[in-house]
Amino acid sequence: MRLLLVTSIRDALLAISESFAPLEPEDVPLEVAGNRYTADEVIAREDIPAFTRSTVDGYALRAFETFGATENLPTVQKLVGEVQMGKPAPHISPGECCYVPTGGMLPTQVDAVVMIEQTEITGDQVLVLRPVAPGENRILQGEDLCRGQVVFSRGRKLRGPELGLLASLGLTSVKVIRRPLVCLFSTGDEIVPVETPVLAPGQVRDANRFGLTHLAVTQMGAVVIDGGILPDSRGVFQNRVSSALREADMVVVSGGSSVGNRDFTTQTLRDLAGGELLLEGLAVQPGKPTLLANCHGKPVLGLPGHPISALNIFALIGGAILRRLSGAIGEEWQPSIRAVLAKDISSRPGRTDLVRVALTKAADLPIATPVLGRSGLLRTLAEADGLIWVPEERDGLPAGEMVEVYLWT
Amino acid sequence: MRLLLVTSIRDALLAISESFAPLEPEDVPLEVAGNRYTADEVIAREDIPAFTRSTVDGYALRAFETFGATENLPTVQKLVGEVQMGKPAPHISPGECCYVPTGGMLPTQVDAVVMIEQTEITGDQVLVLRPVAPGENRILQGEDLCRGQVVFSRGRKLRGPELGLLASLGLTSVKVIRRPLVCLFSTGDEIVPVETPVLAPGQVRDANRFGLTHLAVTQMGAVVIDGGILPDSRGVFQNRVSSALREADMVVVSGGSSVGNRDFTTQTLRDLAGGELLLEGLAVQPGKPTLLANCHGKPVLGLPGHPISALNIFALIGGAILRRLSGAIGEEWQPSIRAVLAKDISSRPGRTDLVRVALTKAADLPIATPVLGRSGLLRTLAEADGLIWVPEERDGLPAGEMVEVYLWT
Repeated sequence: MRLLLVTSIRDALLAISESFAPLEPEDVPLEVAGNRYTADEVIAREDIPAFTRSTVDGYALRAFETFGATENLPTVQKLVGEVQMGKPAPHISPGECCYVPTGGMLPTQVDAVVMIEQTEITGDQVLVLRPVAPGENRILQGEDLCRGQVVFSRGRKLRGPELGLLASLGLTSVKVIRRPLVCLFSTGDEIVPVETPVLAPGQVRDANRFGLTHLAVTQMGAVVIDGGILPDSRGVFQNRVSSALREADMVVVSGGSSVGNRDFTTQTLRDLAGGELLLEGLAVQPGKPTLLANCHGKPVLGLPGHPISALNIFALIGGAILRRLSGAIGEEWQPSIRAVLAKDISSRPGRTDLVRVALTKAADLPIATPVLGRSGLLRTLAEADGLIWVPEERDGLPAGEMVEVYLWT
Repeated sequence: MRLLLVTSIRDALLAISESFAPLEPEDVPLEVAGNRYTADEVIAREDIPAFTRSTVDGYALRAFETFGATENLPTVQKLVGEVQMGKPAPHISPGECCYVPTGGMLPTQVDAVVMIEQTEITGDQVLVLRPVAPGENRILQGEDLCRGQVVFSRGRKLRGPELGLLASLGLTSVKVIRRPLVCLFSTGDEIVPVETPVLAPGQVRDANRFGLTHLAVTQMGAVVIDGGILPDSRGVFQNRVSSALREADMVVVSGGSSVGNRDFTTQTLRDLAGGELLLEGLAVQPGKPTLLANCHGKPVLGLPGHPISALNIFALIGGAILRRLSGAIGEEWQPSIRAVLAKDISSRPGRTDLVRVALTKAADLPIATPVLGRSGLLRTLAEADGLIWVPEERDGLPAGEMVEVYLWT
């Protein structure tokens, strides 16, 4: 354990990558491997293509027999048959050719295909109107991927193309890192279940749970365990989080908003982590009161109380933790929308400001308009399309500046 | 039915939006509403916040009683209690105050909160060291969202923030458009199931299915029915697709590569659509042999045979169709990575070229390097991070140009 009072996002991400490790691997069917990360190198166990194929509809022949062919003086091949899709190719003797559809298997005796458009047919004779080069219009067995070749390195995310490639190789399962089990607690005496029909004075619905669960499951591939709502009681809190850590790979606490709640959460996480926190305050606005503990290799993340901050910090910090546990190697590219800032934004140097903006189409680049309103207002979440980052070293951004907008996920 | 020989992507997207309509609405629990689209306006049925709250830890009081307060000459309030989180606030008489934590309910008799840092305590007396303005550090009941207010318009995508907002309003279910049921067929005599242990000569595994299913389910929220592998037989094809159209909302045919297969697919789709196709060839490379039919309001999409083209066209055209069926209103923002092109790309004007590129980090913007190799090679899918679009009107892009890279999904 080492003390690390993290201030910047960069340091926080570094601490996450140093403190936590990927979970165990498991073999899963390809059908459920999407968005998971490979636990090992994947090696091709077959050649792709599995046989030498035609890339056009045409006639399979020996290329050298067409040398010198012209429209006025075509060479002539005897048509002796046809390649059936999915069937072995026929035998082709010198001077002969056979019809082959795109993707059809080439006879071993030939080395090229002349496109049908460059031929004429007379009875069983094919007139070839131009010469074909050896290897033309064919793809050799193993030319795409060779048996024994490394297809993917460890830590590769399996998206549509990767799944297609694995399936092409005849793999029906793949070794990936298992999905992290995340236990999600809400804390605060004021918090009541969402389905509470009528709120008593002072009560607030447990709304963060839905947004956080959606992010964790849909965007980050985790499995979420509902830890329920905990009262503002240090004893209960400590018991329930300790107990959750026996089962879960990560605990997320969606915190109460009061200073008292934050105090005992901080103290409990410190105890569970053996004395020190990885992260006690983040140089991000909104999102400063973020806590992160390393409890014997398992992360416990304390989110800020404000719903907006909680969602943003979970996407940023929780997402980095879950990618690490899930076996991702390297940073993930973060796509954004380029836009022109509609209004000046002021910001304090030394922290990253996350500014909510609404996007509108324009002739050239879209316009990003900051959504005003106090940081706690939920309405601004509904009005905004995404976030702009104002970097630590800037004291704001002027209207007209080109910005990158990161969409809500 | 009207003949529309679509050439450009823009026209194809327009045809999709004109030809197809959102499916029926259904009420679903919030837990499974993520990434769905609202079928109606959502109206707030409660105020948020449900009660006037403090935004800081401090003392709730009447603002005018602090007018003129200074560090040297503080005003004095009698401390008569404390707001408990989740409980009704106590009654505060003139000259009194009570402690209130962030988020705590304010007594109806007060109109402001002084931050704890701007006070000193002596016994049961709170010394206020600076004046507080009326309304300071409080958020009024309904200030965020008022009962009866429109929260979301129709066709809004429900992501983390939207789900949180709905939960805050006490909504446990929401009316969204139902998930489209997509029946996926592979065609071609050469195609065999992925799990086939050893390929016979000429056989190819049904690999597209996995990538397409992943995209449809994970990225587009559809429900996929496995239609299986169809032989190159027009009769069987027509029967199976007709029958699928009775149950499914959309049919996708991952086509064989031969001209013969394409011919009978085109003819069958034309018959099923009552004579004409919406789309018979797309001005996109790779992806030209794309077919789209409107079969009595249901889309049937014929994908190109090449796995790479099939995935790209499904993401582009299939995605647009599924968004339309799912009730999306307006275009979706397409985030991308800005990068610098490493090499010249040549392209033919009059069509959109989709060029696979690999991204590498650099000091400033990342570098996008075109992944070379014939268009049919699967390996290039594994090596590339995403795609650059070379627009119709350009005859290529020079090295050094700033490009937008759209990541695989």
